[in-house]
This record gives sequence, structure tokens and C-alpha cells, in this order.
Amino acid sequence: MAKTEVDIIVEARYLLPMTDTEVISDAAMAVKDGLIVEVGKKEDILSRYEPKTLLGGNNRAVLPGFVNTHTHAAMVYFRGLADDLPLKQWLEEHIWPAESRMLSPEFCRDATELACLEMISSGVTLFNDMYFYEDASAEAIKKAGLRAVLGAGVLDFPTSIAQSTDEYIEKAEQFIKDWIGDELIMPSISPHAPYTCSPETYKKTIDISERYSIPVHTHLSETAWEVQEIKNRYGKTPIEHLESHGLLTERMIAAHVVWPTDREIEILAERGVSVSHCPESNLKLASGISPVYRMLKKGVHVSFGTDGAASNNDLDVLGEASLASKLQKAVAEDPTVLDAKTTLRMATCLGAEALGLSDITGTLEKGKSADFIVIDLDKPHLMPIYDIFSHIVYSARASDVCAVVVKGRVLMNDYEFKTLDKEEVFGKAKRWAMKIMEGQRV
Amino acid sequence: MAKTEVDIIVEARYLLPMTDTEVISDAAMAVKDGLIVEVGKKEDILSRYEPKTLLGGNNRAVLPGFVNTHTHAAMVYFRGLADDLPLKQWLEEHIWPAESRMLSPEFCRDATELACLEMISSGVTLFNDMYFYEDASAEAIKKAGLRAVLGAGVLDFPTSIAQSTDEYIEKAEQFIKDWIGDELIMPSISPHAPYTCSPETYKKTIDISERYSIPVHTHLSETAWEVQEIKNRYGKTPIEHLESHGLLTERMIAAHVVWPTDREIEILAERGVSVSHCPESNLKLASGISPVYRMLKKGVHVSFGTDGAASNNDLDVLGEASLASKLQKAVAEDPTVLDAKTTLRMATCLGAEALGLSDITGTLEKGKSADFIVIDLDKPHLMPIYDIFSHIVYSARASDVCAVVVKGRVLMNDYEFKTLDKEEVFGKAKRWAMKIMEGQRV
Repeated sequence: MAKTEVDIIVEARYLLPMTDTEVISDAAMAVKDGLIVEVGKKEDILSRYEPKTLLGGNNRAVLPGFVNTHTHAAMVYFRGLADDLPLKQWLEEHIWPAESRMLSPEFCRDATELACLEMISSGVTLFNDMYFYEDASAEAIKKAGLRAVLGAGVLDFPTSIAQSTDEYIEKAEQFIKDWIGDELIMPSISPHAPYTCSPETYKKTIDISERYSIPVHTHLSETAWEVQEIKNRYGKTPIEHLESHGLLTERMIAAHVVWPTDREIEILAERGVSVSHCPESNLKLASGISPVYRMLKKGVHVSFGTDGAASNNDLDVLGEASLASKLQKAVAEDPTVLDAKTTLRMATCLGAEALGLSDITGTLEKGKSADFIVIDLDKPHLMPIYDIFSHIVYSARASDVCAVVVKGRVLMNDYEFKTLDKEEVFGKAKRWAMKIMEGQRV
Repeated sequence: MAKTEVDIIVEARYLLPMTDTEVISDAAMAVKDGLIVEVGKKEDILSRYEPKTLLGGNNRAVLPGFVNTHTHAAMVYFRGLADDLPLKQWLEEHIWPAESRMLSPEFCRDATELACLEMISSGVTLFNDMYFYEDASAEAIKKAGLRAVLGAGVLDFPTSIAQSTDEYIEKAEQFIKDWIGDELIMPSISPHAPYTCSPETYKKTIDISERYSIPVHTHLSETAWEVQEIKNRYGKTPIEHLESHGLLTERMIAAHVVWPTDREIEILAERGVSVSHCPESNLKLASGISPVYRMLKKGVHVSFGTDGAASNNDLDVLGEASLASKLQKAVAEDPTVLDAKTTLRMATCLGAEALGLSDITGTLEKGKSADFIVIDLDKPHLMPIYDIFSHIVYSARASDVCAVVVKGRVLMNDYEFKTLDKEEVFGKAKRWAMKIMEGQRV
């Protein structure tokens, strides 16, 4: 019998579909026209399909790409610009001045290219971004071949981006109209936070998210300062405040949520709000430790975000997952919470679900988009192997990702970037960094 | 003028001596007969020395190797054997049965080879080990070319190693006699913990450490259970208990110290005891979070350990340092604690100091042993660079280490291992893992 031609077959010692099927050993997956055609035993797949490109191998794990549900990608150019400082000083003396001097469409496009290069090298196939000039960022992301949800930031005070709330919202809506229906870019709407957006502003963004069936991406309950500030202004803690105005929906991705009360955790569960847990940023800025294990117990949907590289200082979702799993065990005083399987689901399929994209991506199943990564197990720190879930969450590093495919397009293979020119991206980064440093010195 | 012949010149965009000189840019270092001959500007070094081997390069950072002040290297063969379990169940149902079935000189030698391969690949040049059959481990370490402090474990109950406390101590002393004076291996003495060793046993080990001028390596105040147990037995918390018997000395490296009281922190500072902070193991086993920032404030000497790979699950000191820095900021509610420079000192020169080896290693200075690593900065997650300390602590990964040199011997260069045969080490790991799994199934 003649074999069916496909674009890609990827072979794996362990294939983790992140469905009810936990692991397929000695597996393979066939891909055609950007979609997964079949997942199964290697012997069977190889006997029935003929690939143009063969990926993976005997000492490789294949799984859905990692999903970064909260970032500000273009901030990679500010990585390490200022560290070890209180949040207020870090923002007011370093980050905001640098942003106000530097931000432009060109800056955001070039910086997002570097962010994409980093995310590809770290096995991220889908990310949820909130920043400015997202049109320019979208251009870079399309070139890189990644999948992203992009939301133009909405604020109640003027910046170089817009002079009024209405202008921010008009621009955000125009961005949505321009990009809705794109095969890789999903627009969203991004009210910044309860302390920078009034309930009226949130209401307008929620209406837009309903009208276009898109996510709402916001910061929520990040610091003790925010909780106190919202109490002072509105007499309620941040989540109760939004709830009292009917502003919490299933479309919402709330980043951080470090300080929820027990009642607020119940509200998040009832409303189906997704939390993007960003432990490295929360620790490094001394914001606190989010009670993720308690949220999971109450049925809150939690996935992982890196936040921007200025406060982290990288875009490594696997690092966040590994840290979160260990950190929650200590704060829960229970080593069984966030076990390796749960944690890996949070880093993959649950991230896609949070972004409303689980029909398309986040698991390896027939008919889904071929969005997957290959992990190279041929490393001293990955020997020997008893449990592949444990190995990925507790021992593997982002740098063990050797291949990345999105919608059937190979973005990296054998650690070589296929869509972006590394030297060109690095050259731009160096030139922009010189401009940023010149400004810092003035 | 004729150039002086040296064995190695290593070039660096940034050279971090970890002395009062913070950074030398466009630097180089000359090495001859295992020792550092000179550190300075590249132009100057290259004009005066002629190397047999040229390492490093324009986009590289050079610094002393990382120091792992607490591990059980041979436990790498149990990596990922059991996870997400309470400590008691993990130990009693998985680790101890596996150890009692498997441990032998051959097992420890082969496993330590894998541990050395992993530590070399992660930039560790010196480690402090406590386990069994350290003679066999020493053989593997000499072959790998790493520097290590090795202590045979002493316990008050019988195992396959020894039938009585005296037999453990006799064997440990024999090991000391056999290895003292070795150029890479420094023997130590390792009473396991206050709950497994009586004060009399500790006293014997302290006497031996004084007699031979060697370190005492112990576990101390690791879990809330231990604190309660020692209180029940002796009426005192663990550190006060050892103090009351005069058992705390400057030669002691105390691993973990998760639960010290304020008074106990003062005692550690007064006695000059070094603490090996192992945050990943402490979090993953839900032992707790050590108050490192409070210990530093009181002048306690703190460095980093990985613990064994069975509870971590790797031997990555840089990962511990990066985590510790962020974690302490959150628990201190102060983002200025464990800043990048302090943290990197803890991971390098302060580790060497803890082990009593700071005359030999831990900084890059004329006359010190040429123990250094090269970090490859040519990575997306390391672009752009404003502050090399921030980059190494907050952005770099162990996998960015591209070269490792100990005592002038190149152990890894361009990510290629030079002293151990990777395939051979992996082959042994696979064969031993099969035996371990067979045992687990019974």
C-alpha cells in the first residue's frame, strides 16, 4: 500500500499529547497543511506516512509548546536595565523614563523580534502580550511564526500613545478590527489595572471583548500597595471591586493575583476568570507569593506568565512552571500540590484554554494545529529517566528545547533558528541598547 | 621583547575576578602550571604572553566556577525516581529501599561520574559531598578533574556501610588519611544530622576535624519535624542543642538551616558556622523557606548547595542562586536584599571560603588555582547587556556555560566534555537505572 504524503513526521521516545492519554512511548506524529494528521506509535505512523521533513528522534520528548499567558514582549530591550530596586523607584526612575524616551513602532517591532527569538529558543509557541504599538509587534511575530494574543494597553491617563481614555480605546478597537481573523494573531483588549483604569473604562473594554469575542487581559491584585489603594478609592479589595461592577468574565485573563482574599478566590472561580501566575516577577519585585494551591483547590483556572523581561529577567515559561511547583509545595506545606503532571498542564493546554484557543492549540490531537516542541533528552541533567513528567518540570531547562513548530512551520530545529536571522536580531538589539544607555546617562 | 609562554589565555568581554575589582572589560587571563599568572586587559596580556591554548572570546564572560556547598552527588541515579511525595514517604518507601538495594562502590563511582558530567556542564568547579563509598566517588572525580570536599557519612544506626558509630568513624578517618594532601580532593567528616547522631558522635567528628584541619559537613535544622524531634529529645532547638555541647565551629558547613530562631542565628554568626542554603530542595520537599536575608544581616556566612538530585532535581548552583535571590526578596518584602553582586559572591568565592579553600580557589587572582568558567553571552535571553552581574544571576542559565577549567585543565570547551566520555557515562546510567527500576517493581 502506498504511503500518504505528509509535511512532517516527528519521532519521540515520549510523546505527551496533554490529553487523557498521558504518554505514548516510541511515538510519532504526522503533520500536513499545518494540522496534526495522526498521533500514535512510531512503527505504525512510519509505515503509513511519508514525510517531507523528519524531526525528533529516539532520545527526544515531544509535547505541545509552552504558553506564556502574561508578558510585555517588547520590554526585552530593558532586560537588566535596573534591578534590586523597590518597585516604585524601578518604575519611576528607570522603566517609565526609558519607555517615554524610547517607545516607537520601530522599537516595539525590533524588540518583539528579540522576544520571539528568545521564546522560540525556550519552547514557547503561544503568548499573551500587553503593550503599545502592537501593530508593529504583530509584524515581528508573523515573521517569527509564533502564535500570540495581543492587546493594546488602555489607561486613564495620557502618554505618547494617546491623550484620553477614549483615544486609547479607539486605537485598541482599530487594532482589533485590523487583526481579527488572522491565522496566528488574536487581538485582545487590555485595560491595564484597577488603579489605572476606572470601572467605566473596564466596562467599555468588557463590552468590546463581548462584541468581538476576544480576551480581556489585565493586571489584578499584584501588590499589597494596589490592594490598599483600591480600598482607599473604592472601599473594596481589587477583585471585589471589579465584581461589584459586574466586570469579571470568562474572557478575562488576570495577571499576578498575588493578594486575593478567600472570598475573592471564590469569585474568580464563580466568574471563570483565568489567572496568569508570574512567580519570578512577583518574587523579584518583592510583590509576594500568590496562593496558587488555594486557587486550584477552589477551581480557579491558573496558567503561567513570565511578565516582561525587565522584571524577571527572561521569557522562560518552563522556568516559571518549575519554580511555581516547588514554591507552592513550600507555602502549602504539602509536597503533593502542583505535582509534575498538573504543572505541565498549566504550562501547556491550560494556557491555551485561558486564551480561548483550546479548539486550535494546546494539545497534540488529530485536527489541532501542529504547535509543538521537541525536548532533547541527551543531557547529563536529564539522565537517567524514570518519569518524563518529573523530568520536564523538575530537571529540564528551556535550553533543552531543540525544535519548535507552529502551524506546521518549523521555527527552530537542532537549535537553529529557521525564521529569524539571529545575527540581525542581535545587531538591532545592540544598537537600540546603546541608545537606551545614552538616555540613561543624561 | 619575546613573549612568555603560558598554557592558557582566556579572553573575555567581561572578566569577574570576584575580588574588590568588580569587572574588567575586554579582559584576558594567563594560566601556567595550573595557576593564574596574570589577570588584566586583553591587549596587555596578549602582548606579553603566548598561549598553547586560547579560550573564551569577545562575547564571553569569565568568572570563578560555581561552588556547590551541599550535595550527595551519587544520588543522581535516583533523579526523578519519586516526586511530589511527603518527605517521610519519599524516604521510607522510595529512596532508602533503593539505596539499601543498590549502594556499592561501583554504583557510587559510576553515579558520581554522571554527577561530575552534570556539574561540569553547569559550571560547578568545586563541590562539597556527603555520601557513602566516597573512595569510589573520589576516583570518578579525579577522572573528571573537578575539585571536591568529600565526607563519609557518620550515623548512630547500622547500615550496609557500618555496624556501629565507631565503625563509621573508623572508616571515615581511614578515608581522611588516604586522601589528605590530594591536589583536588579534600576529605571532610560528615555527621549526618542532630536526629541521627548523638552529641557524643558529633564530639568525635569535631575532634577529628580539628586534628586534620578539615571541614565538618552536617545537616542542620532542615525541617519543622527535626526541630520538634530535637526539642523532644534534648529540650532544645537543634542549633542551641549543638551549641550547648560546644559542637559548633568555624569548620562546620551546616546544610539547610531552614528553621533557625533569632537566637540561633546569632549563635551561627558568633561561632562562624557556614550555612549551605539549598532552596530548591527545601521548597520541593516542602521543608520551608530559610530566612537567609536575616542570617546575612547578622553576619552569618551563607553559600549555596543543590542537595542531591533525588530531591531537587538537578545539580545546578546557578539555578539555586537565582532562585534564592528572588525568593529572599519576597520573604523579606524588600527587593534590595541578595542583590546580584552579593548573590554571585555567595555562589563563588563565599562557597570556597566556607570549605576552607579560599587560599586556593574562588577568585581569579595571580597565584590562585586556575579554576574558572566561561559563559557564552551569544544567546537571545542574554541580549542586550547593561549589567553583567544582573545578567548572570537573573538571566543566564547553567546551560550558557561553554567552558570549564580546573587547576589549568580544560574539562569542557565549546560545550564539549574533555575528560569524561559522555556516551560511556550515559550508557552506564541507563544500565544502572534498569536495575533500579527492576528493584522498584518487586
